[in-house]
Amino acid sequence: MAGSTFGTIFRISTWGESHGKGIGVVIDGCPAGITLAEEDVQKQLDRRRPGQSRYTTARAESDQVEILSGIFEGRTTGTPISMLVRNQDQRSRDYGSIAELYRPGHADYGYDQKYGIRDYRGGGRSSGRETIGRVAAGAVAQKLLGELGISVTAYVSSIGPVSIDRNAMDFSYIESTPVRMPDAKAAKEALAWLEDCIQSQDSSGGAVECIVKQLPAGLGEPCFDKLDADLAKALMSVGAVKAVEIGDGIAVRFAKGSENNDTYVEDEDGIPCKASNHSGGILGGISDGSPLFLRCSFKPTPSIAQPQSMLGKDGKCHVETIHGRHDPIIVARAVPVVEAMTAITLADHLLLSMTSQMAYVKKIWGDN
Amino acid sequence: MAGSTFGTIFRISTWGESHGKGIGVVIDGCPAGITLAEEDVQKQLDRRRPGQSRYTTARAESDQVEILSGIFEGRTTGTPISMLVRNQDQRSRDYGSIAELYRPGHADYGYDQKYGIRDYRGGGRSSGRETIGRVAAGAVAQKLLGELGISVTAYVSSIGPVSIDRNAMDFSYIESTPVRMPDAKAAKEALAWLEDCIQSQDSSGGAVECIVKQLPAGLGEPCFDKLDADLAKALMSVGAVKAVEIGDGIAVRFAKGSENNDTYVEDEDGIPCKASNHSGGILGGISDGSPLFLRCSFKPTPSIAQPQSMLGKDGKCHVETIHGRHDPIIVARAVPVVEAMTAITLADHLLLSMTSQMAYVKKIWGDN
Amino acid sequence: MAGSTFGTIFRISTWGESHGKGIGVVIDGCPAGITLAEEDVQKQLDRRRPGQSRYTTARAESDQVEILSGIFEGRTTGTPISMLVRNQDQRSRDYGSIAELYRPGHADYGYDQKYGIRDYRGGGRSSGRETIGRVAAGAVAQKLLGELGISVTAYVSSIGPVSIDRNAMDFSYIESTPVRMPDAKAAKEALAWLEDCIQSQDSSGGAVECIVKQLPAGLGEPCFDKLDADLAKALMSVGAVKAVEIGDGIAVRFAKGSENNDTYVEDEDGIPCKASNHSGGILGGISDGSPLFLRCSFKPTPSIAQPQSMLGKDGKCHVETIHGRHDPIIVARAVPVVEAMTAITLADHLLLSMTSQMAYVKKIWGDN
Amino acid sequence: MAGSTFGTIFRISTWGESHGKGIGVVIDGCPAGITLAEEDVQKQLDRRRPGQSRYTTARAESDQVEILSGIFEGRTTGTPISMLVRNQDQRSRDYGSIAELYRPGHADYGYDQKYGIRDYRGGGRSSGRETIGRVAAGAVAQKLLGELGISVTAYVSSIGPVSIDRNAMDFSYIESTPVRMPDAKAAKEALAWLEDCIQSQDSSGGAVECIVKQLPAGLGEPCFDKLDADLAKALMSVGAVKAVEIGDGIAVRFAKGSENNDTYVEDEDGIPCKASNHSGGILGGISDGSPLFLRCSFKPTPSIAQPQSMLGKDGKCHVETIHGRHDPIIVARAVPVVEAMTAITLADHLLLSMTSQMAYVKKIWGDN
Repeated sequence: MAGSTFGTIFRISTWGESHGKGIGVVIDGCPAGITLAEEDVQKQLDRRRPGQSRYTTARAESDQVEILSGIFEGRTTGTPISMLVRNQDQRSRDYGSIAELYRPGHADYGYDQKYGIRDYRGGGRSSGRETIGRVAAGAVAQKLLGELGISVTAYVSSIGPVSIDRNAMDFSYIESTPVRMPDAKAAKEALAWLEDCIQSQDSSGGAVECIVKQLPAGLGEPCFDKLDADLAKALMSVGAVKAVEIGDGIAVRFAKGSENNDTYVEDEDGIPCKASNHSGGILGGISDGSPLFLRCSFKPTPSIAQPQSMLGKDGKCHVETIHGRHDPIIVARAVPVVEAMTAITLADHLLLSMTSQMAYVKKIWGDN
Repeated sequence: MAGSTFGTIFRISTWGESHGKGIGVVIDGCPAGITLAEEDVQKQLDRRRPGQSRYTTARAESDQVEILSGIFEGRTTGTPISMLVRNQDQRSRDYGSIAELYRPGHADYGYDQKYGIRDYRGGGRSSGRETIGRVAAGAVAQKLLGELGISVTAYVSSIGPVSIDRNAMDFSYIESTPVRMPDAKAAKEALAWLEDCIQSQDSSGGAVECIVKQLPAGLGEPCFDKLDADLAKALMSVGAVKAVEIGDGIAVRFAKGSENNDTYVEDEDGIPCKASNHSGGILGGISDGSPLFLRCSFKPTPSIAQPQSMLGKDGKCHVETIHGRHDPIIVARAVPVVEAMTAITLADHLLLSMTSQMAYVKKIWGDN
Repeated sequence: MAGSTFGTIFRISTWGESHGKGIGVVIDGCPAGITLAEEDVQKQLDRRRPGQSRYTTARAESDQVEILSGIFEGRTTGTPISMLVRNQDQRSRDYGSIAELYRPGHADYGYDQKYGIRDYRGGGRSSGRETIGRVAAGAVAQKLLGELGISVTAYVSSIGPVSIDRNAMDFSYIESTPVRMPDAKAAKEALAWLEDCIQSQDSSGGAVECIVKQLPAGLGEPCFDKLDADLAKALMSVGAVKAVEIGDGIAVRFAKGSENNDTYVEDEDGIPCKASNHSGGILGGISDGSPLFLRCSFKPTPSIAQPQSMLGKDGKCHVETIHGRHDPIIVARAVPVVEAMTAITLADHLLLSMTSQMAYVKKIWGDN
Repeated sequence: MAGSTFGTIFRISTWGESHGKGIGVVIDGCPAGITLAEEDVQKQLDRRRPGQSRYTTARAESDQVEILSGIFEGRTTGTPISMLVRNQDQRSRDYGSIAELYRPGHADYGYDQKYGIRDYRGGGRSSGRETIGRVAAGAVAQKLLGELGISVTAYVSSIGPVSIDRNAMDFSYIESTPVRMPDAKAAKEALAWLEDCIQSQDSSGGAVECIVKQLPAGLGEPCFDKLDADLAKALMSVGAVKAVEIGDGIAVRFAKGSENNDTYVEDEDGIPCKASNHSGGILGGISDGSPLFLRCSFKPTPSIAQPQSMLGKDGKCHVETIHGRHDPIIVARAVPVVEAMTAITLADHLLLSMTSQMAYVKKIWGDN
């Protein structure tokens, strides 16, 4: 498998290059009967779209989606949902000069080694535009989850040296700032930091967190297809992500068992609940009924307008400056991508876990 | 899929519970012609085995492997390799008292919610013994990689507050200490820390790192099945892992592009090479020819011999102390598990990537 | 994938060779809560076992199954069910003489071409003993189907020139004759025919049919994973099967649309029902609520005790007689294998189809 | 999985409905470096297209393909190849009357039972137009096979009572007749038979055979993913196919072992070769180096312009006549579909089988 398919039941296949004719996705295995319109998908694509602010690439793409199949009279039919976004502003001439160079921090060298051929225009398949298909499919997954009352919310938790204050988080603020931080003060500082980066023709790393509420307990398969394992794959497969953490993440290595265990207490109504959520809502690979929490660390955009020493196809080093239109930071545009990959993974596990008990099987087929 | 299968070509399926009849694995898709003996597998199982030191559970298991199929005259035949380890010391009576309780930090509650039934003896399928199948399969993957000169080496990089000194690393020391740290001084401090944990009936978290050398460039599939994405899944699927990092990992979020990009320099022979390896050997999901580097953070063993407030099947909180035989730390025994999951993922990607170019296809089938 | 795994949710992986240590299967994805004992499996294995009559190989194998995992207190737990049958009567010396020869009608040449190595003892992995794993898994699938009232019944419909009389079928007679025909008269003729074959040191082909009753409508996926497509694969994957037919099978090519269409009539209670079942219970790849009907054609056992001209590893023709213990006919022993593969495919599709409607999803997860 | 994906390495996903916006396919896992142009695909689509003769539906569709991704400078890049055919002549009004009826011989009832919703316009996803994606992907697979000298040729072998004369076969004649028979005399008779069918507002069944030459020995996986098992699935998944035969097919059930075994003889140059090819080029699921031969039986088109008794959504029988534009026979248009599914299966197995020997692995990766 060339690996452009993700999921077992709710299964997506993406295709498309940065400077080809377009980008798309096919969703197979979406249950029939979900209300779905192009607007549901467009809304998420607009959050990912370039040109939202001066902190994102100036490439002019409206990223209008067309749903080509799988919908009838406003509802999903259970057959494959194919979605297409045409590319518009492909200034491929910008990239001619790098046909013979392998850019630092990019997949250029790997592609040539793997395939012996590379569509070098704008990164080809390794472009961030590949995430359009993910976001479109994620919008459908979010509709499915929404029908069960499950919400998926991502936001930027840090940019360079600036982190949000966890005691000052306001989720309603996320979409009010181009950096998508749920904290006005941190957002302001982050914007100042990004101005510095732009001035110095540099870029910055950052982190995105995601919280899922109302997820039922019992999702995830015990061994390799643990819920956290599939989330780790889903998110690490997003370009530029270099670390995925669940719950307390790397902090667990400094903890003692007595600190890390989430013991039970009775709430004011005498109902037992977890006193803490170090697990991030997953234990032994199975959701435990608490909010799911994860964090991804994104590297700084490798395309910077500074001269850098690169490897040439001629086997020699060349100091060159990459031209093109790039983002000084990608975490803000990555927020809908993180939501999408999380939602797709959860939708798939919700469907998978329907088959875990004979009692469930009888609930569906027992009436026959 | 109930998720007990991993890999696309080099594909493993594990089975077995802590207190059932045994644990095993079936490897399908291992190429024919690899020299393989039970000793190759036993050697790795012995590194994972309980009872290696006073820092590991006292459960007495010799974990002798039997290869049941797939080998003829000392070589793999290309047909499935089935391996079996019988359980021996199953003191299931230790666990009777927890049949009605959901232990903090364990998968107990999730299993009951998911399946409506749970083999509560020793964690059942969620026991650390499940990793026996992984280690056995990993030994075969390591034989395959070894025939191509690829080495996979894991070690403990931190235990609680104690971290190795990266300037004092000595890989030949790893197997000399029960904590499998490549640094004698850190190992001594870690052992002291573990004594404290044992005294206070507590457990400790830690981290395991893994380095792969001589890996060819060009492995990994560009989109969802990126090499790092599959490694993230492989390692996050190991019980107790809560974070997976590739290369610089979470540190990338604090970096600028000019710092994080691995530019090229000419070595003393005038041959270009990467001046740094922040990428950890993977760019855009494809191996770049540099050493692969990853890190996993393990939470402290949740089984501690202190009274804890647990949830009962009766829907009430109960303060109880868990009896049984447990490890105060798991990273040392996890070292062969991390090597195994890394090797299995790489073996699979090596085989997958053989099909990426028509030139390769002709190399194999052109002679017909 | 080396192809020893079948199914998407109810997923089986088989392993083992004719003259290795044993044969086995791992079932992953079996729902929790099904009552299961070794006797349930043994009963089916006993129907497949050699030595049932003089028309089956004299190899002495009791084929006792051991369930190694996945069962707790008599019920499935949702975790992998591993089953093992040890080989006992391996007269490998019988096969030494054919190490250098490729037998006609056998996979010998293909294995050597594919793998460059071959376990030539008794056919190795290509032996009919490989079906033990299928029958064991099929017994579990039949338990699952049984809990929903679905029955799967196979029988021999023809042996050489002898066919059953469809107007004289008596299913209760099937197990009364070594040829498993539901027709006493045909069975008697078939036995006479087989005596002739044995006398002339020859073997005979035949056919097995299978009927499934009480299968709900709505199973099967519309495109590649049609119910009949998956059944065709399942049954064609049984060694010696050379044709799979659904419903009227090859007869449809002689039919007109007006003859082949199953129109509706009202029964005596005024309830509409299909006037015929040319479709065999599947239309457009989806079960239609009628009984499912399929037929497999088995070639005659290729191992015959006559001198035959074979290809040698030396690239020359050799006239040799194959020794060993073989069946003059395999359809009788194939009856439980056909039932098993049918049941496994149906169990998988029952589970898959639980996810086809959002209304079903809400039925399971809506209570959360 | 909703089953719209086929293949393990060379993997296709199709989408689209008869009266939706279009039909398409995504191929993932096609090796890089194959020369490919839209004309290569169009040529095959033109053979499947409606309106080729008076024996095919009058629906006016030019079926122009657009390749949206995966090609750069005329060659495949190894990334997904997305292809789109827009629907043009969708007279959906023809179908309004059957929204409330389940047509005999169609999937209508199954879809409603499975999904609770159905795109009834022209059969929706169950339309023969779904095969456009298969034919487009098959054209790419045939390019791949062609680079290795492997040819795939299908033709009509029977229509109703008319069969080709095997002694008079002329492959160069296939495209000269609208019935695609390699026998001018039989073609003439078949056309006369079809005129009768049209006059009586009826349709006819038929058979398609396929021969593959120059296929290397050693393709196919020994157990479930046997080459013939995957071909059986591939072809049974084509709508209207009710039987798949390999080699002698159903005739094997009447044969004796001494007749069915393909023994070896020395040809005039003293080189051993099979004296016959009853196996159809596959033994034990693995190609044996002889020509591969298979046959599919197609049922007559269920849409006939006669009054028929159908089931209504109201649970009552209704005698109605289906209007619309349909083919009196589908085997002629099915010829490129059979070639496509055969080629796709073989391309996948060629790639899969590259990983069967460590010697092959070293051939690719040993140079690193």
